[in-house]
Amino acid sequence: MTAKGEGEENVIYVGNKPPMSYVLAVVTQFNSGSTDVVIKARGRAISRAVDAAEITRNRFVTDAKIKEIRIGTEAITNEEGRTSNVSSIEITLTK
Amino acid sequence: MTAKGEGEENVIYVGNKPPMSYVLAVVTQFNSGSTDVVIKARGRAISRAVDAAEITRNRFVTDAKIKEIRIGTEAITNEEGRTSNVSSIEITLTK
Repeated sequence: MTAKGEGEENVIYVGNKPPMSYVLAVVTQFNSGSTDVVIKARGRAISRAVDAAEITRNRFVTDAKIKEIRIGTEAITNEEGRTSNVSSIEITLTK
Repeated sequence: MTAKGEGEENVIYVGNKPPMSYVLAVVTQFNSGSTDVVIKARGRAISRAVDAAEITRNRFVTDAKIKEIRIGTEAITNEEGRTSNVSSIEITLTK
């Protein structure tokens, strides 16, 4: 799940901050000249990634379109060495 | 966000139950002869919808593929008459 040779500078990783933090990051990325911005999240942050994409598209960068949405599963190893699976999402916005 | 004339019988709505409940529903739908199953969710259940799709694909219906993923925004009116926006997802699995 990488951004096809575009480097990692246009990738926004969504975590536990309020959705508007990530919206701001996406808007800033578009304003700096990127035509594609990738929003990535895992686990419970997936809902927030969708929020960030939707708020960006509906309110701030209204000419942005959804280019691609991918979902996947990643294996995570915890401190005790156990692995568990977590779902992931990758939303590519383009304008 | 509808299932293009396929009716609603192959749509699984994801809520607050454990992901496996929805995995079971999806698997049952495939076993009853559906070639497409649509998994829908709103708000915080979006992450669970992705989990259900991934668990189904990786463990139970390994020949199922992701046909389409759509995200959107829906307006919800609460008891006091206020409207708020909530993100939604629609994952179509096919085999």
